[in-house]
Amino acid sequence: MKYPKIPLAQTVIQLCKAKGIKHIIISPGSRSAPLTIGFTNNPYFKCYSIVDERCAAFFALGIAQQLQEPTAVVCTSGSALLNYYPAVAEAFYSDIPLLVLSADRPKHLIGVGDGQTINQPNVFENHILYSANLKLDLDDQAEEEEELPIFKNLENKLETLLGLKQGIQEYNEVEINKAINIASSKHGPVHINIPFDEPLYDMIDEPTVHPKTISIEENILQIEPSVLNDCIKNWSEASKKMILVGVSQPNTIEQKWLDTLANDDSVIVFTETTSNLHHEDFFPSIDKIIAPFNNENFINLQPDILLTFGGLIVSKKIKAFLRKYKPKHHWHVDTKKANDTFFSLDKFIKTTPNQFLENLLDDVSKARESDYKHTWTSIKSIRLNKHNDYLKAINFSDLKAFEVILNAIPDDTILQLGNSSTVRYAQLFDLNSTLEVFCNRGTSGIDGSTSTAIGCAVANAKQTTLISGDLSFIYDSNALWNNYIPNNFRIIVINNQGGGIFRILPGHKNTENFDAYFETKHRLSAEHLCKMYGFEYNSVSNESNLIYNLNSFYSLGNQPKLLEVFTPKNLNDEVLLQYFKFIGQ
Amino acid sequence: MKYPKIPLAQTVIQLCKAKGIKHIIISPGSRSAPLTIGFTNNPYFKCYSIVDERCAAFFALGIAQQLQEPTAVVCTSGSALLNYYPAVAEAFYSDIPLLVLSADRPKHLIGVGDGQTINQPNVFENHILYSANLKLDLDDQAEEEEELPIFKNLENKLETLLGLKQGIQEYNEVEINKAINIASSKHGPVHINIPFDEPLYDMIDEPTVHPKTISIEENILQIEPSVLNDCIKNWSEASKKMILVGVSQPNTIEQKWLDTLANDDSVIVFTETTSNLHHEDFFPSIDKIIAPFNNENFINLQPDILLTFGGLIVSKKIKAFLRKYKPKHHWHVDTKKANDTFFSLDKFIKTTPNQFLENLLDDVSKARESDYKHTWTSIKSIRLNKHNDYLKAINFSDLKAFEVILNAIPDDTILQLGNSSTVRYAQLFDLNSTLEVFCNRGTSGIDGSTSTAIGCAVANAKQTTLISGDLSFIYDSNALWNNYIPNNFRIIVINNQGGGIFRILPGHKNTENFDAYFETKHRLSAEHLCKMYGFEYNSVSNESNLIYNLNSFYSLGNQPKLLEVFTPKNLNDEVLLQYFKFIGQ
Repeated sequence: MKYPKIPLAQTVIQLCKAKGIKHIIISPGSRSAPLTIGFTNNPYFKCYSIVDERCAAFFALGIAQQLQEPTAVVCTSGSALLNYYPAVAEAFYSDIPLLVLSADRPKHLIGVGDGQTINQPNVFENHILYSANLKLDLDDQAEEEEELPIFKNLENKLETLLGLKQGIQEYNEVEINKAINIASSKHGPVHINIPFDEPLYDMIDEPTVHPKTISIEENILQIEPSVLNDCIKNWSEASKKMILVGVSQPNTIEQKWLDTLANDDSVIVFTETTSNLHHEDFFPSIDKIIAPFNNENFINLQPDILLTFGGLIVSKKIKAFLRKYKPKHHWHVDTKKANDTFFSLDKFIKTTPNQFLENLLDDVSKARESDYKHTWTSIKSIRLNKHNDYLKAINFSDLKAFEVILNAIPDDTILQLGNSSTVRYAQLFDLNSTLEVFCNRGTSGIDGSTSTAIGCAVANAKQTTLISGDLSFIYDSNALWNNYIPNNFRIIVINNQGGGIFRILPGHKNTENFDAYFETKHRLSAEHLCKMYGFEYNSVSNESNLIYNLNSFYSLGNQPKLLEVFTPKNLNDEVLLQYFKFIGQ
Repeated sequence: MKYPKIPLAQTVIQLCKAKGIKHIIISPGSRSAPLTIGFTNNPYFKCYSIVDERCAAFFALGIAQQLQEPTAVVCTSGSALLNYYPAVAEAFYSDIPLLVLSADRPKHLIGVGDGQTINQPNVFENHILYSANLKLDLDDQAEEEEELPIFKNLENKLETLLGLKQGIQEYNEVEINKAINIASSKHGPVHINIPFDEPLYDMIDEPTVHPKTISIEENILQIEPSVLNDCIKNWSEASKKMILVGVSQPNTIEQKWLDTLANDDSVIVFTETTSNLHHEDFFPSIDKIIAPFNNENFINLQPDILLTFGGLIVSKKIKAFLRKYKPKHHWHVDTKKANDTFFSLDKFIKTTPNQFLENLLDDVSKARESDYKHTWTSIKSIRLNKHNDYLKAINFSDLKAFEVILNAIPDDTILQLGNSSTVRYAQLFDLNSTLEVFCNRGTSGIDGSTSTAIGCAVANAKQTTLISGDLSFIYDSNALWNNYIPNNFRIIVINNQGGGIFRILPGHKNTENFDAYFETKHRLSAEHLCKMYGFEYNSVSNESNLIYNLNSFYSLGNQPKLLEVFTPKNLNDEVLLQYFKFIGQ
C-alpha cells in the first residue's frame, strides 16, 4: 500500500478510514494530490473521479442520502471549492452527512497573488455544521515562520520544533475527529480545509503518523417526563389530531405504530410523497384533498394537535391552511431541529419518532371517539373518484404524463424527483407504496437533481428512476459526465419547453417578457446530451407512444436510458387549473 | 412604462438606472419577479435571460470585464444565489465590478422550513467588497412585528408606522447607493440581498418612491512626496530595473511612457500575455526567456528594483526566480491593492501606472548607462531563434497547434484564453500586438471561461475568439445555453482528451490512477454540444487540416463556430519538455 509522504494527508486518510468513510469523490487537481494519491492507493476506499465539482458534490450527496453515512468530496484549492456550495447548502437543510475535504495553499502563499488561491477557511459559514481549518504540517516546513513565533530566541531549536510539530499534529487530529463526528452524529455537511506545501506527489510505503481516533459521545435522548405527561394528557383529550410527515427515509417508523395510529378515529396522518410512509388509512396527495376547501371546511377541520415528523413540507396548500387555521398545539419530533413552519410550534421533542410514539401511544389508554378521521376519509374518497374521472377525460399533458409514468415504475425501486413542477405533480397521485421516493427539498433548488439521482443509483442496488423537468435536467447536464452510471439507471424528462411552474404562478402569461424571463422558453431536447454521454434515447409526445415506450423502457440494455416526454406547454397549466376546479365540484 | 408595485423593487431599479447600470442578467424565479418585471419593462436596461446562475454570473463578468462598469445579475432566493459564487470570487480577485441582486424571503419566512430559503445575508463574506442586507419594505407589511418593536405601546400608530417606513426606505436607499458606489469605485463584486413579500407580480404605471442618489466621493490619489523622492532617487541610481506587468486592460499606459522605458538601457519590461502591453523592445513570453536559466544567470540578472503593475502573474518561472533572487526593492503601483507576490514588497504606490510614470520619468534626468537591457535582449534573440527552429521541427501537438492558431487570429480582435494549459501555452508565443487578450486569472479556475468569453463577445463590437482546453470547455458547457451569442463568436477547443497540465506536473504518469483521477482521461468531443446549441462544428487532428480549416473559420456564417483540435495526449508533454531543453542549448 502507498501513502502520501505528507503526514497531514496520511492523518486525514487514516481518520477517514477509522471513521468508516468509504466513498470518496475526487475532482482533479494538483494541490489535492496528497489526498488523491492516498485515497486511490488504499483499497479500503471506493473512489470516484468527477471533474465538475458542482456535480461531484451532488453525486456525493446522493450516495450519502442513501447510506446515511458521511461521504467525502475532495478538491483542489481555489474556485473548485465554491462549486460545492449548492450541494453543501442542500446537505445542510436536508440533514445529509457530506464531508468536504479541500486542499489549500500554505498561509504564506495566500493573498500574494498566486493562482487558484482564495480565502477558503470558513467559506461555507452560513450553511455548515463545522469548519475545521487545519494547520500546515511542519514536517518539511521548518521555515514556516508564522508557525514558529519563538523559534529564533531559543537555544534548543530542535526540541522546540518537535514540540510545535507535535502540537500541530494533535490540533489537526482533534479537528478532523471533531468534524467527522459532527457530520455523523448531527447529520449534515462539514468542511475540513487542509493546507499542503510542495512537494505534493511524493509517496511512501508505510505511514509515518498514527492519528488517534476520538469516538462520538453517545447522546442518549430522553423525553422530559413533564413534557411527555403533557403530551399524553393533551393527546388523549383531543378529538382532532393531525400528523403531517415530511421528507423521511424509508422505514423510519415501525409498522405497529402506523397501525395504532391508523386505528384511531381522532387521528389523521398526512403523508407527503417524500415521506416514504404508507398505510391504506393514511392520506397521501394532500393538495388533492384540501385544494378545493373553503373557509368553512378549514374551520371545521382545523386540528387541535398537529404532530410533525420528518423534513421539509412540499405542499404549499397545507402550509397555508395550517398557518391560517393554526392548531392549538404543534409538536415536532426530531433528534436535531424543529422548524416553526406553521408559526404555532409549542413543543420540540428531541427524540426519534419511534421512541416518541412508543411513549405516547403506550400510555394513551385507548383511541378517543371522534368523527375527525371519518370526515377526512369521506373527502378523500370523493376526491379520488373525481381525480380518476378527470384523468380519464383529459388530453395529453403534464398531468396525464405523470399518471402514466408513475404507474409504470417497477415495484421495489427508487424514484428520484426533480424540484419545482415535478415533485408537485407527483404529489397529486397516490404512489405505489413499494417505491422509495427522494427529492432535494433542503433548498428545493432545480440544480443538482440528476447528479443526486446518479449518486443514489450508484449507492443503492435497487434500480433508480429520475423524473425531471427540462430546465432542471439541462441545468445539471454535466451530471451525465460520469463514468459510474449503472445501466439500469433511468431518466424521464418532462419537456414542456421551459419552466412550466411559471404558468401556474400568478404572473403575466403570454407576453414576450414572460416567455423570455420567467418561462425561459426554449426548443432544446436531451437527445444530443444522450448521444454525447452514451444514454439510449427515446422521445414521445402523446399518450399511446408514452405507454408503448414505457413497456420496454425498463428492460435491461447495455446503456442507461432516457425517455423524453414532450408535453404541450400551452395546455399544461389549463389542465392543472381545471383539475383543481373539477375535483372540488 | 411599468413598475413593480413593491417600492423596494422600484428603489433598486431606479438607483441602478441613476448609477448607469445598463446590463442586467436575469435567471428565472418567482421571488425575484418584482425585479424582473421592473428591469424588463424599462427600456433603459438591456436584459438577458440565462437559466444556469453559474453561467449567468460569468457571462455578466465577461460584460463587466469589457465595459469596466458594474453589471448586474438577478436571481431568486435559495441555492440559485450560491451558484454565483465562482464568478463572484473571480470578480473579487480580478477587480471586476459585479453587482449581485438576490431576492429573498421576508425574515419571518426564513428558517421555518419554507422552500428555496437559505441564509442569504453575507453569504459571500470571504470574497465580496460589500454586502447590503436590505430590510423588508413596510408598504403592505404592517404586520411585520419584528420591524415594529414599539408599535403596540403607542397611541399614534399611523405616525409611527410612517416613521418606521420612512426609516427603512432611507436605510435601504443608503445601502443600495453604498453598494453600487463601492462596486464602481473599488472595482469588485458587491451583493445586495432584497427581501420581498407576496404579492410579487403586481405592476403600476408610475413609481411611488423616488430614491435619492448619493454620488461617489472623489478620491484624489496623490503620491506622498517623500515616497516619490525615494523612488526617484533609487530609480536613477539603479542599473538593473525590471518592470513586470500582469493582467491589464488594453491602453492602460500611455505610449510616451512606454517609449521612454524602452529607451532606457537599465530597464527591461516583462509583459505577460494578459498585460495587453506591447513594444518591440519589451519582453513577452517570459517563460521562454528564463526557463533555461541556471543559478549563475539568475544571480547576474537579479534586479535592483522590481516595479509591477496590473493583476496576477501567470508565469510560475518568474515568480520562482524573483522569490529566490529577490529584488532590493519591489514597488507595486495600483489604485486598490498590492500583493506581496515576491515576498519583497517595500512600496505600495496607490495611484495609476500613468500617474506614477509621469512623476517618476519626468524627474529622472536621463536614462542610466547599463548593459542590463542589452544582456536580456541578446538572450531574447537567442531564444527566439531556438524557438523558431524547434517549432519547425516538431510533430503536431499542443505546442504546434498553438503556433498555428495564434497566427491565424484576425487583427484587431479579442482573444479569451482558458486557464491551466491554454494560457501557459499562449504565453510561449509573441502575440499579435493588435489583439486584446483576457483570461480569468483572479482565481485561475477552469470554470466559467466560456461564459466569460460569450459575455465579452456580447459587450464588445470586436470579434471574440475563445481558446479553451477540453475539460474547461465541458465544465462550462451550459455557457452555450445562451440566446445572445453573436455569429462572429469563435471557439477553438484544444482536445487532448483530459487535463494535459497533469502530464507536465511532477505526478506519476501512465498509471491507472493517474489516468482516472489526475488527467481524467475521456473520449468526449464538443460535437454534440454544437449540434444541441447551434454552433457550426469542425474538427481536425493534424497540422495541414488545422491550417486549411482556419482559412475559412473566420468567414462570417449564420451561426457561431467551434473548431475542435485533437492533439496526441501522449506526445504533448514530451514536446513541451523537450522544448524547454532545446531553447536552452
